[in-house]
Amino acid sequence: MPSSPLPQQLTFLREIDRLKSVVRLTPLLDRSRRENSAEHSWHLALYALVLAEHAAGEVDVLRVVKMLLIHDIVEIDAGDVPFHVPESHAGQAERERLAAERLFGLLPEAQAAEFRELWFEFEAAQSDDAKFAKALDRFQPMLHNAATEGGTWVECAVTLEQVKQRCRPPIEKGSPALWAVAEQMAEAHLGPADGETPDQAA
Amino acid sequence: MPSSPLPQQLTFLREIDRLKSVVRLTPLLDRSRRENSAEHSWHLALYALVLAEHAAGEVDVLRVVKMLLIHDIVEIDAGDVPFHVPESHAGQAERERLAAERLFGLLPEAQAAEFRELWFEFEAAQSDDAKFAKALDRFQPMLHNAATEGGTWVECAVTLEQVKQRCRPPIEKGSPALWAVAEQMAEAHLGPADGETPDQAA
Ligand SMILES: [Ca+2]
Repeated sequence: MPSSPLPQQLTFLREIDRLKSVVRLTPLLDRSRRENSAEHSWHLALYALVLAEHAAGEVDVLRVVKMLLIHDIVEIDAGDVPFHVPESHAGQAERERLAAERLFGLLPEAQAAEFRELWFEFEAAQSDDAKFAKALDRFQPMLHNAATEGGTWVECAVTLEQVKQRCRPPIEKGSPALWAVAEQMAEAHLGPADGETPDQAA
Repeated sequence: MPSSPLPQQLTFLREIDRLKSVVRLTPLLDRSRRENSAEHSWHLALYALVLAEHAAGEVDVLRVVKMLLIHDIVEIDAGDVPFHVPESHAGQAERERLAAERLFGLLPEAQAAEFRELWFEFEAAQSDDAKFAKALDRFQPMLHNAATEGGTWVECAVTLEQVKQRCRPPIEKGSPALWAVAEQMAEAHLGPADGETPDQAA
């Protein structure tokens, strides 16, 4: 009789509780505190369910949802590196790779392999599913920034040009319709694209 | 040209951010604070992905995950009523029904109908998908209680008999294998089933 997979599965489910304590820079919309990576992942899964019709390619919603539910689990070991703080990014890819091996490796081998592969696919952002998942992961913080008087745009002192340079490729590749909205939001908050501040432009 | 569904969809996605501020009784495993309903929903969706092979019936994993991602959204209006505080349950079903109408009603009509129907199906707990989703929703707090020296069992002063009476039907109907684990955990923490305290039994 093969041994039950349950003990390993429950160990994994207990371990990932720690994602609820990984805090991101992005504020909640009511600005009461910053968002953690577990509730962020829940929110993104709902973005996928609600916005799937706006994906650039043909997407498999269950695969996109799975990617988004697991995409930040590596932060339990590797921490969150804020998108608009590029100097924090050095070495992060390798830290996350090791984290993926350890954390998904807590599961029975077939599930560990599935989650590892989904996570690598998300990171690579080449498949239609991964492009759409990545687009949502970049779009959601923009919506929060726009709704909180600038959020991390202001906190990290980014310009409209930097926002466009960093966010346009991943969002537009996964969903041109969402990039159109995101660009409008960024322009409304950060002013003209030529590097001038909104005050100078006024 | 039909008008875009995007504005309504984004309004809904902004509104549900408030689920991150609905706090449940259940503690995080490190006992640093209580869990909120958004991160709880994330955790349950992962329970569904990881534990699907233990479902009693044939389940559609995407439908189960959708149910779990949306099952607590009604708490934004209706609040969370703790499972082991029965005196808080009066009127909650009606409050949640109204909440489902308002909150899912923010979406374009086809999506609003889909989410409302999924939520009613979850609440009714009759289909195989809903039975499994409900079982996970009851099982996860038991795992947290067992891992935190009793958690809400101790806080709400429930007996082993009460835990079995309240938790066995929903968990066993959705997953006999998970009920076997849950029963063992409850017995290990709350002692014999005859109503005696562990001290009396020793
Ligand atoms: Ca609940």
